[in-house]
Amino acid sequence: MDITERARLIRSGDRRALARAITLVESARPDHRDEALALLSALREPRREALRIGLSGTPGVGKSTFIEAFGLMLTGQGLKVAVLAVDPSSARSGGSILGDKTRMERLSRDPDAFIRPSPSQSQLGGVARRTREAVALCEAAGFDVVLIETVGVGQSETVVAQLSDLFLLLLAPAGGDELQGVKRGIMEMADLILVNKADGDLKPAALRTVADYAGALQLLRHRPQDPPGFPKAMPVSALESAGLAKAWEEMQALTAWRKAQGQWDRARADQARHWFEEEVRQGLLAALAREPQKGLMAGLGDRVACGDLAPEAAAAEMLRLLGRT
Amino acid sequence: MDITERARLIRSGDRRALARAITLVESARPDHRDEALALLSALREPRREALRIGLSGTPGVGKSTFIEAFGLMLTGQGLKVAVLAVDPSSARSGGSILGDKTRMERLSRDPDAFIRPSPSQSQLGGVARRTREAVALCEAAGFDVVLIETVGVGQSETVVAQLSDLFLLLLAPAGGDELQGVKRGIMEMADLILVNKADGDLKPAALRTVADYAGALQLLRHRPQDPPGFPKAMPVSALESAGLAKAWEEMQALTAWRKAQGQWDRARADQARHWFEEEVRQGLLAALAREPQKGLMAGLGDRVACGDLAPEAAAAEMLRLLGRT
Repeated sequence: MDITERARLIRSGDRRALARAITLVESARPDHRDEALALLSALREPRREALRIGLSGTPGVGKSTFIEAFGLMLTGQGLKVAVLAVDPSSARSGGSILGDKTRMERLSRDPDAFIRPSPSQSQLGGVARRTREAVALCEAAGFDVVLIETVGVGQSETVVAQLSDLFLLLLAPAGGDELQGVKRGIMEMADLILVNKADGDLKPAALRTVADYAGALQLLRHRPQDPPGFPKAMPVSALESAGLAKAWEEMQALTAWRKAQGQWDRARADQARHWFEEEVRQGLLAALAREPQKGLMAGLGDRVACGDLAPEAAAAEMLRLLGRT
Repeated sequence: MDITERARLIRSGDRRALARAITLVESARPDHRDEALALLSALREPRREALRIGLSGTPGVGKSTFIEAFGLMLTGQGLKVAVLAVDPSSARSGGSILGDKTRMERLSRDPDAFIRPSPSQSQLGGVARRTREAVALCEAAGFDVVLIETVGVGQSETVVAQLSDLFLLLLAPAGGDELQGVKRGIMEMADLILVNKADGDLKPAALRTVADYAGALQLLRHRPQDPPGFPKAMPVSALESAGLAKAWEEMQALTAWRKAQGQWDRARADQARHWFEEEVRQGLLAALAREPQKGLMAGLGDRVACGDLAPEAAAAEMLRLLGRT
């Protein structure tokens, strides 16, 4: 099937065509890569834009339950929702938390939802590109909201934040008044902190945790992309679908403000530039693993290893051979 | 002064010449860089080798006190000791923990010791190169032991482990039986875990912590570079200078075993190759920030930011212009 026909099918909402296209952008084969670039290019215009929501949270916080409840609420409002996962650790752990779709059984059966488990791959650079391209495919397929989930290992939150319009941090009620060891850098990325499990016995603890985080958020320096009152901490209960509508209202208010202020377009432009630069960096480094560079690297590396050349001197020689000094 | 004379002074043990040479390798100026490479090259032969000891530990564990006590013990045995710091965070925090030499007052006055505070610079790639070259300078200056300290922020332990022959992890006695949240990856790098403050009231807790870590170390998979019984956990008291001689004996035994098994040379060869490859990668990326690449990147970046080009397509074009696809 030619590229134009595949692009038409994806645009028309054909789910199998979308799933196949995502498999294509995930492939490492050079011929697949060329095909993927041609397909993405064919899908670029006319432009369709989804709201990209990044979501992070430690395991056990009820992320799958939250995504299911939040996703169903959105599809209930007539919106089309795609869920993607960024999981650089899946190569090690043997599968994404989304690998088992049965954890979002109702959402995965919803005709207005599309759930894509994370493939196993360990390299974060590859994960970022693949996810970015999957987001673009979902946007072309007409989804209104793309949820990008991260398991929160290493740098993956940063990657997801650079792919998202909004960043949600999902937390569990804390035992005491400690802030669950959430790294300051992660907290600084959040637009909304949602404290889940605000139901039953845990409700008082959840409300206390919200208050703690609300206090902590006030200590952060003001970000130009925030209207007054943001970032914000709120309680939700994925189990009882409580607080989700309110959270969605906040996301829409934040989105509207950012669009009106030009922050929205600015952020997307900055992200696109960031990914272009990152792609060039990855491409330059990847070339070192191909001939003839690979052979030159190995030869100089051997001379360094046996003490014949200093690392600095060998590197200077290699860069000279590459015409890069 | 010409390079040959400066090299001669450094080799003769002139401390001011050494300090100036370290300042030179720390400089980002291109002309200084050329000078630094020439000086390092002049100092390469005849080869002098120090024992390079990496040291990591969270703040508050008594690292400065340990380095002072351990360093004084070594100089007391007639050894010359250099102390370097790797602190990628110092740009943020406004100074290394070694910035204040008064924290190692006695060692800094010892004629057989040389303490070099960490300069402020935030880029880890630069930190690694600078420290690696400072180590080479200290070796040429005839130091027997080079202690490389890290504050343990982000990736700095990995950098220090790749610069060291031995890696020490310094810990404080734990309150309960928890393992102080030491990341598994850091524990896997350690050759010796030293539990400090094994004195006074804390002694029982320190001994319990040693036992806990000894147990945890047994669960790690065997590494080819380890003789039976290693890695090992031991109590020390920097305050009372207790356990330091025993720790030093273990380091010497480990060193002797690795040298006899060829592990020592292999590790140094692997490290040299690693730093050569890393230096090439850094050099390739650095070239993007110089003209004409910088202008090309900015031009394509602008087209990506305004939506005229996709990040992937622009990156492919840039790599084509660089002759790298």
